[in-house]
Amino acid sequence: MGRRVVTLTTDYGGRDGYAAALKGVILSDAPDATVVDVTHEIAPGDVLQAAWVLATTWRAFPEGTIHLAVVDPEVGSPRRGVAIAVDGHVFVGPDNGLFTLVIDRSADGRAYELTNRALWRQPPAPTFHGRDIFAPVAAALARGMAPEQVGTEVRAVQVLPAAKPTRRDDGSLVGHIVHVDRFGNCVTDLAADALPAAQVAVRCGGHRIDELVHYYAEAPRGRLVALVNSSGYLEVARRDGSAAEELGARRGDEVVVTA
Amino acid sequence: MGRRVVTLTTDYGGRDGYAAALKGVILSDAPDATVVDVTHEIAPGDVLQAAWVLATTWRAFPEGTIHLAVVDPEVGSPRRGVAIAVDGHVFVGPDNGLFTLVIDRSADGRAYELTNRALWRQPPAPTFHGRDIFAPVAAALARGMAPEQVGTEVRAVQVLPAAKPTRRDDGSLVGHIVHVDRFGNCVTDLAADALPAAQVAVRCGGHRIDELVHYYAEAPRGRLVALVNSSGYLEVARRDGSAAEELGARRGDEVVVTA
Amino acid sequence: MGRRVVTLTTDYGGRDGYAAALKGVILSDAPDATVVDVTHEIAPGDVLQAAWVLATTWRAFPEGTIHLAVVDPEVGSPRRGVAIAVDGHVFVGPDNGLFTLVIDRSADGRAYELTNRALWRQPPAPTFHGRDIFAPVAAALARGMAPEQVGTEVRAVQVLPAAKPTRRDDGSLVGHIVHVDRFGNCVTDLAADALPAAQVAVRCGGHRIDELVHYYAEAPRGRLVALVNSSGYLEVARRDGSAAEELGARRGDEVVVTA
Repeated sequence: MGRRVVTLTTDYGGRDGYAAALKGVILSDAPDATVVDVTHEIAPGDVLQAAWVLATTWRAFPEGTIHLAVVDPEVGSPRRGVAIAVDGHVFVGPDNGLFTLVIDRSADGRAYELTNRALWRQPPAPTFHGRDIFAPVAAALARGMAPEQVGTEVRAVQVLPAAKPTRRDDGSLVGHIVHVDRFGNCVTDLAADALPAAQVAVRCGGHRIDELVHYYAEAPRGRLVALVNSSGYLEVARRDGSAAEELGARRGDEVVVTA
Repeated sequence: MGRRVVTLTTDYGGRDGYAAALKGVILSDAPDATVVDVTHEIAPGDVLQAAWVLATTWRAFPEGTIHLAVVDPEVGSPRRGVAIAVDGHVFVGPDNGLFTLVIDRSADGRAYELTNRALWRQPPAPTFHGRDIFAPVAAALARGMAPEQVGTEVRAVQVLPAAKPTRRDDGSLVGHIVHVDRFGNCVTDLAADALPAAQVAVRCGGHRIDELVHYYAEAPRGRLVALVNSSGYLEVARRDGSAAEELGARRGDEVVVTA
Repeated sequence: MGRRVVTLTTDYGGRDGYAAALKGVILSDAPDATVVDVTHEIAPGDVLQAAWVLATTWRAFPEGTIHLAVVDPEVGSPRRGVAIAVDGHVFVGPDNGLFTLVIDRSADGRAYELTNRALWRQPPAPTFHGRDIFAPVAAALARGMAPEQVGTEVRAVQVLPAAKPTRRDDGSLVGHIVHVDRFGNCVTDLAADALPAAQVAVRCGGHRIDELVHYYAEAPRGRLVALVNSSGYLEVARRDGSAAEELGARRGDEVVVTA
């Protein structure tokens, strides 16, 4: 296999030693792994944000990558841990909806409840399964263990009850802002191929946007625009500024598209 | 030895190039090292915070790991640099108390003043010993150099005058908040095995907490609880919120435990 | 060559998955590369800040390092992509002035417009050349491809119209604050060897600083001082505090030095 990549996506932040503990465990158990930070800046407990970041990054990594994700407000409770094998990648973390969008957009996948306790640090601390369960399991997978050896196959995993885009009788499409990025770009759940036409009108937060551009700098400075972003979804942006700020937009807000 | 891990713990922040300079020097001098960020978000000059993060993370890393720590407000002054070998790990940085808690909790250890100038970048910049002294020394250790070759053994290193838990005549235990983490959890210096009983009352910031739980989600939402955390210390937490905020608690505040 | 280092300098921030996408592409295309974060905390679109961070870090890395830098407000427009080979290092990113200070301070260098489309992810997303053009090119270079194979040599690249230090008739030297670091230190563009004397008076933001020290802790607590920093430039600092805050200083402000 060569060196396996293990990615980390958590809400641990950068100030404490929690993310480092994951890295230490992985490098202890799988010294040849390449550990990569995706982000530790997920808002505390924000499972949906983590789901989004995972969904938009995992395919950039090589086949064989292990994606360790820990946003886990229920840590220590009877909620399950899972490993999900999808298209040659394996996702490891709590079974709380973190992998909703990965599963949504993949043709197939197999899920395993983490039941092979021989892999865990004993006894696992009830408040830090990241270090004591998920990281050792990720390391075992990075050493080449097959996903079916980390636990028992299960038929279903938790998914978040995310609103889906709908179509109104007048043909307009209603989606939602699913992510506001660092630049204030408002990413929606409207896939490019679902848009009613090449030229559309986008309504969001009381604004109407008629310009569908290809890139930010195509618009005059300060102008709100819509575009299809690098993940293939409709995004509302503002050249040299924050669209979210100008729109007063937040995750979950409706975005309506008409031809 | 295989690939050696070098961890980095600094107050350099993420915006400047200081942390990157450390990485560049280490990878120049020890190309096979695996460099791992613990954190660069220690508050500027906050030696105690760094000491805490080091203490709670180093044992997760494999034997042979080099821990480079630089929180160094006295850089350039005659304060010494040290390498401290403890249980197969080596710590490198200024001798200003950074390694207090590592030493506190280890049976043994040997300390060396960094006197082998042949290892340093010449001349070392008086304001950046991290780059010019500590990183090259860490790289030399990562290449397999023995700690006794980086300098002269010394009998004592600086330790921080941290308050220790005390026991009152009435049997109650008085400890302190030593760390407030990203989630607002208030970590104390009270080790689990020092607690007077399985069921305790914890007083902190004018609040009395009677619930000792095993994990956060065991409590109702918003409730203040006490628990033994993943490092084995008493912690005051709040389900789905910040205990530090609700308590108005800060590092150094007293926490009193009664049976 | 052994393992090649690829450094990353962007304004992508830590919350989204953009930086992770770069890492995924590089590790997909060049599995043996060592990927190193310089920073992702460049202020959005702040090309000059990135230029500064690059200029002060790149020489710490080993020869053969690839420096991928993406601060790219014009992404998708006809602005060119470039690879610049300097002293055994290669810089890759948009041709918008990012590499101004690297070129400024190097004796030679060759620049190539990125025209070898066979290396790119197809089709490149107009809003994410980092992932689809620059990262694959960086990976190709990390695999050992020669810079002249990534595109066509060009004679000139964009440079930022940065103000240069000037000398007044009275012999005083006028420079500028080019960077304010995390600690509030104000770094200038005045090189140590241009200073008029070992003992100087520095004027900045209405303050006059007569003390030229060698390191921060040489001054009493709270005192403003000037010193030659670890990159060889004059810096105004404050012991145990932020000089920028006390001076009300910002990037671009004048600093006047007299003998």
